[in-house]
Amino acid sequence: MNYRIEKDTMGEVKVPADKLWGAQTERSRNNFKIGPSASMPLEIVYGFAYLKKAAAYANCELEVLSKEKRDLIAKVCDEILEGKHDDQFPLVIWQTGSGTQSNMNVNEVVANRAHQIVGKVIGEGEKTIQPNDDVNKSQSSNDTFPTGMHIAAYKKVAETTIPGIIQLRNTLHKKSIEFKTVVKIGRTHLMDATPLTLGQEFSGYVSQLDHGLKALQHTLHHLSELALGGTAVGTGMNTPEGYDVLVAKYIAEFTDLPFITAENKFEALAAHDAIVETHGALKQLAVSLNKIANDIRMMASGPRSGIGEIIIPANEPGSSIMPGKVNPTQCEALTMVCAQVMGNDVAISVGGTQGHYELNVFKPMMASNILQSAQLIGDACVSFEEHCVRGIEPNHQVIKQLLNNSLMLVTALNTKIGYYKAAEIANTAHKNGTTLKEEAVNLGYVSAEDYDEWVKPENMVGTLK
Amino acid sequence: MNYRIEKDTMGEVKVPADKLWGAQTERSRNNFKIGPSASMPLEIVYGFAYLKKAAAYANCELEVLSKEKRDLIAKVCDEILEGKHDDQFPLVIWQTGSGTQSNMNVNEVVANRAHQIVGKVIGEGEKTIQPNDDVNKSQSSNDTFPTGMHIAAYKKVAETTIPGIIQLRNTLHKKSIEFKTVVKIGRTHLMDATPLTLGQEFSGYVSQLDHGLKALQHTLHHLSELALGGTAVGTGMNTPEGYDVLVAKYIAEFTDLPFITAENKFEALAAHDAIVETHGALKQLAVSLNKIANDIRMMASGPRSGIGEIIIPANEPGSSIMPGKVNPTQCEALTMVCAQVMGNDVAISVGGTQGHYELNVFKPMMASNILQSAQLIGDACVSFEEHCVRGIEPNHQVIKQLLNNSLMLVTALNTKIGYYKAAEIANTAHKNGTTLKEEAVNLGYVSAEDYDEWVKPENMVGTLK
Amino acid sequence: MNYRIEKDTMGEVKVPADKLWGAQTERSRNNFKIGPSASMPLEIVYGFAYLKKAAAYANCELEVLSKEKRDLIAKVCDEILEGKHDDQFPLVIWQTGSGTQSNMNVNEVVANRAHQIVGKVIGEGEKTIQPNDDVNKSQSSNDTFPTGMHIAAYKKVAETTIPGIIQLRNTLHKKSIEFKTVVKIGRTHLMDATPLTLGQEFSGYVSQLDHGLKALQHTLHHLSELALGGTAVGTGMNTPEGYDVLVAKYIAEFTDLPFITAENKFEALAAHDAIVETHGALKQLAVSLNKIANDIRMMASGPRSGIGEIIIPANEPGSSIMPGKVNPTQCEALTMVCAQVMGNDVAISVGGTQGHYELNVFKPMMASNILQSAQLIGDACVSFEEHCVRGIEPNHQVIKQLLNNSLMLVTALNTKIGYYKAAEIANTAHKNGTTLKEEAVNLGYVSAEDYDEWVKPENMVGTLK
Amino acid sequence: MNYRIEKDTMGEVKVPADKLWGAQTERSRNNFKIGPSASMPLEIVYGFAYLKKAAAYANCELEVLSKEKRDLIAKVCDEILEGKHDDQFPLVIWQTGSGTQSNMNVNEVVANRAHQIVGKVIGEGEKTIQPNDDVNKSQSSNDTFPTGMHIAAYKKVAETTIPGIIQLRNTLHKKSIEFKTVVKIGRTHLMDATPLTLGQEFSGYVSQLDHGLKALQHTLHHLSELALGGTAVGTGMNTPEGYDVLVAKYIAEFTDLPFITAENKFEALAAHDAIVETHGALKQLAVSLNKIANDIRMMASGPRSGIGEIIIPANEPGSSIMPGKVNPTQCEALTMVCAQVMGNDVAISVGGTQGHYELNVFKPMMASNILQSAQLIGDACVSFEEHCVRGIEPNHQVIKQLLNNSLMLVTALNTKIGYYKAAEIANTAHKNGTTLKEEAVNLGYVSAEDYDEWVKPENMVGTLK
Repeated sequence: MNYRIEKDTMGEVKVPADKLWGAQTERSRNNFKIGPSASMPLEIVYGFAYLKKAAAYANCELEVLSKEKRDLIAKVCDEILEGKHDDQFPLVIWQTGSGTQSNMNVNEVVANRAHQIVGKVIGEGEKTIQPNDDVNKSQSSNDTFPTGMHIAAYKKVAETTIPGIIQLRNTLHKKSIEFKTVVKIGRTHLMDATPLTLGQEFSGYVSQLDHGLKALQHTLHHLSELALGGTAVGTGMNTPEGYDVLVAKYIAEFTDLPFITAENKFEALAAHDAIVETHGALKQLAVSLNKIANDIRMMASGPRSGIGEIIIPANEPGSSIMPGKVNPTQCEALTMVCAQVMGNDVAISVGGTQGHYELNVFKPMMASNILQSAQLIGDACVSFEEHCVRGIEPNHQVIKQLLNNSLMLVTALNTKIGYYKAAEIANTAHKNGTTLKEEAVNLGYVSAEDYDEWVKPENMVGTLK
Repeated sequence: MNYRIEKDTMGEVKVPADKLWGAQTERSRNNFKIGPSASMPLEIVYGFAYLKKAAAYANCELEVLSKEKRDLIAKVCDEILEGKHDDQFPLVIWQTGSGTQSNMNVNEVVANRAHQIVGKVIGEGEKTIQPNDDVNKSQSSNDTFPTGMHIAAYKKVAETTIPGIIQLRNTLHKKSIEFKTVVKIGRTHLMDATPLTLGQEFSGYVSQLDHGLKALQHTLHHLSELALGGTAVGTGMNTPEGYDVLVAKYIAEFTDLPFITAENKFEALAAHDAIVETHGALKQLAVSLNKIANDIRMMASGPRSGIGEIIIPANEPGSSIMPGKVNPTQCEALTMVCAQVMGNDVAISVGGTQGHYELNVFKPMMASNILQSAQLIGDACVSFEEHCVRGIEPNHQVIKQLLNNSLMLVTALNTKIGYYKAAEIANTAHKNGTTLKEEAVNLGYVSAEDYDEWVKPENMVGTLK
Repeated sequence: MNYRIEKDTMGEVKVPADKLWGAQTERSRNNFKIGPSASMPLEIVYGFAYLKKAAAYANCELEVLSKEKRDLIAKVCDEILEGKHDDQFPLVIWQTGSGTQSNMNVNEVVANRAHQIVGKVIGEGEKTIQPNDDVNKSQSSNDTFPTGMHIAAYKKVAETTIPGIIQLRNTLHKKSIEFKTVVKIGRTHLMDATPLTLGQEFSGYVSQLDHGLKALQHTLHHLSELALGGTAVGTGMNTPEGYDVLVAKYIAEFTDLPFITAENKFEALAAHDAIVETHGALKQLAVSLNKIANDIRMMASGPRSGIGEIIIPANEPGSSIMPGKVNPTQCEALTMVCAQVMGNDVAISVGGTQGHYELNVFKPMMASNILQSAQLIGDACVSFEEHCVRGIEPNHQVIKQLLNNSLMLVTALNTKIGYYKAAEIANTAHKNGTTLKEEAVNLGYVSAEDYDEWVKPENMVGTLK
Repeated sequence: MNYRIEKDTMGEVKVPADKLWGAQTERSRNNFKIGPSASMPLEIVYGFAYLKKAAAYANCELEVLSKEKRDLIAKVCDEILEGKHDDQFPLVIWQTGSGTQSNMNVNEVVANRAHQIVGKVIGEGEKTIQPNDDVNKSQSSNDTFPTGMHIAAYKKVAETTIPGIIQLRNTLHKKSIEFKTVVKIGRTHLMDATPLTLGQEFSGYVSQLDHGLKALQHTLHHLSELALGGTAVGTGMNTPEGYDVLVAKYIAEFTDLPFITAENKFEALAAHDAIVETHGALKQLAVSLNKIANDIRMMASGPRSGIGEIIIPANEPGSSIMPGKVNPTQCEALTMVCAQVMGNDVAISVGGTQGHYELNVFKPMMASNILQSAQLIGDACVSFEEHCVRGIEPNHQVIKQLLNNSLMLVTALNTKIGYYKAAEIANTAHKNGTTLKEEAVNLGYVSAEDYDEWVKPENMVGTLK
């Protein structure tokens, strides 16, 4: 391989000649061989691209950076955001906990690429743009990385998680209306109970997701606060007056998301409670989704020896020999995602507790976990909606049979013949393996006509909204 | 011991003669010998007392219960709330997951105590009040237990957690103002960095708690939704028209808290996302508090061989021989609480995922964990405030010495003599173990007067708000 | 209330006159009002009683304590172990993280009670036994508390957890033999699959518990290592030569458990990986037990509209109206315990990560969590065994019906008539809602006699061991 | 793009013409767009390659597969293990929870590649090898996936985790010997305490890792048990006599690791307690490593305003301006790994609890988490060893200064002049900010000579082993 020589304050480093990164990136590559390379999420890199561009604009407006440099920086940032340099960010999550080296990676790539853009050869001549002095102007790793991670996490939640959940929520809602009159046996403790409608069951799922969405949205204000302008320890040393507000305004403009400068920069560097808070809501949604997916696979179980009240789409062969063996694979993918999100929540919380003085140094780990959770929940909701929920159909025959078999319907006779006679009917039917109606008539407590008149499950499900 | 005979649908049970509970409570006592007895939190019992009284009022108003019975039930509930019957609730958390047996415990105690109140002997004569038909009227375990746990958790959060956090937050805020001009060395990666004020550090803690309080308050609306009126499966079978709204109104009145009826009762029985949500905010606060307590104990470390920038109150002998050995015991109690709350969060989340069909059967476990977390955080904040934070004083001498020793102040010379000369000064001082000023003068780059004029840490801490 | 005056190095403290504790205990009571009082587990106190007695014996044998003092200390320790002073230990878990104050609580109670035993009045005259100099001789809080918690945890695991698990394991094993020939439908993905026996299913549960027990036993060696003899920082300063080995020998003798002195005392004070390790095995058992309890409640679901393959004992009325509504309450109690243990594992792990230098100060929290988990698992296994597993019976009729209905049996025809014809039979039966036999005969592929000869589920379950 | 048509029992699917996979893989690609593509770890694919080859050998030896087919299958498996087909496995973790589709992916790739090897064109002519009938012979997804994950996890632990930990452990041990006589101040509660040696501190770390390694090794026996031979539900239906033992023998031979057939196949499919168990040990190691890394960064803190007792290597510029700002970046990477492993442990435990009947369907999620943890711990230990621990040097000057300043040394005078005079000396020195020696002489209790004779920290550190 060809190399060129790059320098930093510690001396010279050999860097692959065809790469845009510089000395500090290369040092990090060599010093942190932990897990697969390039594990630092690209979303973080893109977050940096937004903020580097915004910083250039703010610096220029506040007259500490030239228009030419601003435009060069912005041009490279736009290229990064178009995905043109995805292979220039080889670093791992498991580096310095402030993410300094990923900040330097971006600074180096922007500077070297700018040099190319003006027609020069990397490593030759005076640098057109300095990675530290220009690209990183009015910044520190300590305020850029948390800014990058807020941008990345907010975008992911807004663009992937929330739309995914809403798509699933809306289909569940549509189903809850479709299934409004499908009366079925209720189950508590997994045991037969009084009836309700399949639509009512689904309305509970909708309500869970509505509450979860509300909880998630409540967290976004904290996540919209950006550390940028705090520099090294939160005091904003070396930033021009008004910079923090301005740079946040530019980030909001470039991302089209409501970012603002953090009121307290000391918190914004030293603690990542905003990440803990948003992930807490993702975890709540994981809890809800697990319940929903679990119910659906239990209701779809069978085809002969399970519950079988609903039919879910057959997306792939469940078995080469058995027709009707439609495995609830989408439920399985979703519940695995839920378990992962529950684990990620602990990783994030542990990282969140461990800020020391002016800096929390679990940033890359926290960032990668929230991005994974937000992506997985969004994607899994869409997959679950498209390949499972959308196609759910009631198995009316099974539903009716399980409902009519149930001894729980005897409850309807309480007010007609009294509790004790009703219980006797139920007891006898249970013992004999017969139906309530048979025993009600046999025991002489109710005529067949009265029974049919009085025991109507559809009257036991409350008002249907 | 003396016994009396009580009956339920399964037959006769011997119950200690001096106890107010009945057959079902006694069965549960015998069937669930798991952990210490009476572990079901009394707060849950009190939650039940509120709801039983409210149900009696609603039932009476809707004309399905007599005024006499209403008043008798209310009278016993008031006695329970006064703590007069605390020893009548012997059941454990680890019972049926719907909490049915604790609901029956309350029903039985109310009925038997009512019998006493009208001057009769328990077990003799017709029951004055029926546990199932009267005390439990228009109710089911499945909607009472979640109602009881929402009442208990909301009260605990409102009356213990939030006031405790606010007390701590306010003192931290007062300190952040007191310490506004105490310039000290900053630390990132635990390493010396540019200066800030002690007040700025404390303002970060205040900001964390402010965000945490806001997050906690956001969760309370979900927690204010009550399941009562859903009865067995959420359909509200066997409740009079308008009962759910009315009973919630009475509960709100009796507790003086803004409870409302849950819009979707199916969710309210089958999922406890509201508990997950509120506990998520408690966990976030635990994360914040851990950071704060950890910082404070590190800053107070010493007295000779640690950081020693602040002095915390000496509450107890830290060592029988060494004066000044003031252990940060309040920080230790608080961080232990934080670890517990992080664990409780997992227990609650796991329970939350496992609702099946119409009922989640992890109710008592989830309830006891959220009550513990809410209590511990509230109490620990108060204890930490009273016995530690309130008495924190800066050790000005140490702070000044550590600040002035720092090589990081060289940053202030960058704009005067250029980056490279500044770095040379710092390097030389580091190598020789000398001060920046000495080397600045020795190297001939700066006069002593200029040094004193230019290197002023108080100018490096940004605008003090 | 009456008070007496007690003193420590910080001055005088008023202590309730009828209590045996002294100044430091009283200070802790006042300084740590966090959660319910006396939450420090009594098992820890008993652990201290064993070690104080053992220390007195070792100190005496090594000639630094008189026989008279040894015997007095031992006498009080024995009284404590008999439960005579349970109300003398009012402190909470949430105190100093080294548990210093609980160590002092024991020292003070032993000293004051010894004074009483020799016929004197507490607070009057020279102390017969000094709490620090005599009871705490050759000890520090830093090595006593971890010793106390190892004793308590080991005893609990050995005396409650392991016997409880074995009791459950043995009954499951008995059932697996009883159910050896009960052929039933298998289920994967909750969907019908090829058959197996109910005994085979139960053998899987036995295997899980066998592996879990082995894992738990593997951890006991680490837990048997005692910190005592390390004193303040692990160096054993102020202990006589040979003391650590000797005191461990006495503890082993008094508890009849194989305790040894820790090879490395620095680890034993600064880290509690032994607690993490043993609790990890408890958590693994919780995972196993959750699977088992979940299966059993699903198999017992019904009675009419669930799976209903087994019948579990009816321990309490599941519903006042519906016979056969036997709720799987023991499964519910057990799975709640499992969730709690999973949460406790996180609390313990978080505490375990946070030792600083020579001391981990999450000791009381870690101790209380492992004791709770060990107790709950042991108790819940016994309860589950006695009130559920012992009484499990197959519902042969349902099992047979679900088995014979299954389309999965067609697999047996593959080798007789080829895969495609077999699939056609299954497909047709699925479409028509008929049986395999009907369609096999209708399609003319198999005669009724051959069908009965070839399709024998009992031949599809492998070798029964 | 060019496509070819592949078929399965559900019909035709278009597959990219240049890919070796078939219909079922392609369906899965389309149905599970959750997170980044190809997230299923390659280690699992390699695990499958071992087992497919072993199955071919066992099937051939048991005369159900021809030698020709065996050799063809083995040849492709070897190619896969050489990494030649890494881009042929595009599926994600978040698919069916049994991993069926990844099993089919391997079956299809082996079959199609075998067709190529014999010189034919994929999709043309009779298949040389059938994916289901030949490659999957005597297998089911349900027993292959857990086998593949045990192979992958065991290899990773044996080849990456354990060697990494040992490398770190050995260097820590070397340091503990090197630092054997470096007496320093001890710290408990972060406060000054009696002295010990730096070597003793490091010996505690070694002891933690030794215990952790032992715990990890204890888990390997369970992990060595392979499900293969259980087929669909654990009964081993459709496998030749003796197959399970034989196939495990071949896997052991091919991997050179001590795999055996699982004694109970029902557990091996329905529960993954072996994964829970091994990961529990990884989590314990994470707890230990967190403590160690945390201590080291605190001891290295400074350079001027921290503890500064040790010097760690400077691997990268910590700051562009401040020399000596050597950030403990390796500690940060390692502690982030520890937090991740703690989170992964929860994800794995949650998945482990949720097996249903004959199958646990959280397999891919559990597998990917254990592989990540095992890789990260191994890699991070190596990185930490190479780039940090190996270069740790004591800062003798600071160590001596902090030691001699300490008031805690007064403990040594207790036995010479009595507790009260010693305390007076310490108190006075603390109040006046002077040294013990100054005040001891001033107060007239000890001569300067005696002081130097009596107060020797090196005599306070116990026996050095």
